[in-house]
Amino acid sequence: MQPHLPEPQALVALVDALRALPGVGVRTARRMAYHLLQHDPDAAHNLSNALELALNNLQHCEKCNGFTQEVICPTCVSPNRDTSLLCVVETAADQNIIESTHNYKGLYFVLMGRIAPLEGMGANEIQLARLLERACDGLVREVILATNFTAEGDTTAHYLSEVLRAKGLSVTRIARGVPAGSEIEYVDAGTVAWALMERKPA
Amino acid sequence: MQPHLPEPQALVALVDALRALPGVGVRTARRMAYHLLQHDPDAAHNLSNALELALNNLQHCEKCNGFTQEVICPTCVSPNRDTSLLCVVETAADQNIIESTHNYKGLYFVLMGRIAPLEGMGANEIQLARLLERACDGLVREVILATNFTAEGDTTAHYLSEVLRAKGLSVTRIARGVPAGSEIEYVDAGTVAWALMERKPA
Repeated sequence: MQPHLPEPQALVALVDALRALPGVGVRTARRMAYHLLQHDPDAAHNLSNALELALNNLQHCEKCNGFTQEVICPTCVSPNRDTSLLCVVETAADQNIIESTHNYKGLYFVLMGRIAPLEGMGANEIQLARLLERACDGLVREVILATNFTAEGDTTAHYLSEVLRAKGLSVTRIARGVPAGSEIEYVDAGTVAWALMERKPA
Repeated sequence: MQPHLPEPQALVALVDALRALPGVGVRTARRMAYHLLQHDPDAAHNLSNALELALNNLQHCEKCNGFTQEVICPTCVSPNRDTSLLCVVETAADQNIIESTHNYKGLYFVLMGRIAPLEGMGANEIQLARLLERACDGLVREVILATNFTAEGDTTAHYLSEVLRAKGLSVTRIARGVPAGSEIEYVDAGTVAWALMERKPA
């Protein structure tokens, strides 16, 4: 949607800046801008400050590469985690979801990306050297690859499994299949095909 | 979704701040925060600055109450607009949509809200005094009410029509009916009922 009124420059700049958010197009960005200015200027101030605060205070954990305000994050220093398990995820959001299962007590390594040659993301961009160093600390016995089941996520998992296995580590991949609680009739055929291929003894 | 990892405070604050955006829940806010921090810190800086710039530079036009960086906005000072028509809208976004029709050459008054007693929005909150002053400038002949066709928008239109008509102005309401280009079969019954009630000579 083109701006049709001679819009003030500061408003245009705000709409443009909001479009950088994932999943936000011009129309949504404009709605957000109007909302903040019309109903909630305090929230706009607060958001501006929170952005600067996050940019200035968050850094990557030296061990797991996740976001933290310390040098090493609370998860990595926790004495309650199983140091023999290392789960590799693409993003901190994925890490959060795995943590929400309350079913994993090992540690993490956050790639902050995945191998995607078309986007110029290679092994260096995903911090491979740091991952290798982390995985070869002598404590880790099994590396669990929890990258996405997309083309790029699968490529990344395949590549990492080769490199990590060469270091003598046990490498596993999280299961792919029909989502828990879903009816097969409504699951896409690709997922069902994988579920059949990767069937296991009942 | 509860945060499951001991998340850094600056990240939690950013996620909370992003939730103030319309239509953004915890999950989306977290995705936005991770995206900005992981992929686009420049955009985060830019958004922070744009918010401050907008808050500091935008004000309400003295004539139409819309957002502008001047005292009176470019639309209100334009010599090409028909000063006998005044279109009343709830928000600057609505004004933009009407402008996008390229079918209206009059001027605007932006309420920056609507009458909604349950939310504590009364006649004072929608700048009624300023609207009356604006509409009674001696040039305006017709006030077009373009508030939303919601309960609150209709209430606002009804109230404004009473007050403005008492000032001797001609007051009209934009048409309610079946959307252009749509098939009646797929339009909701409420809209069709209104379209029947408000039928006009063919």
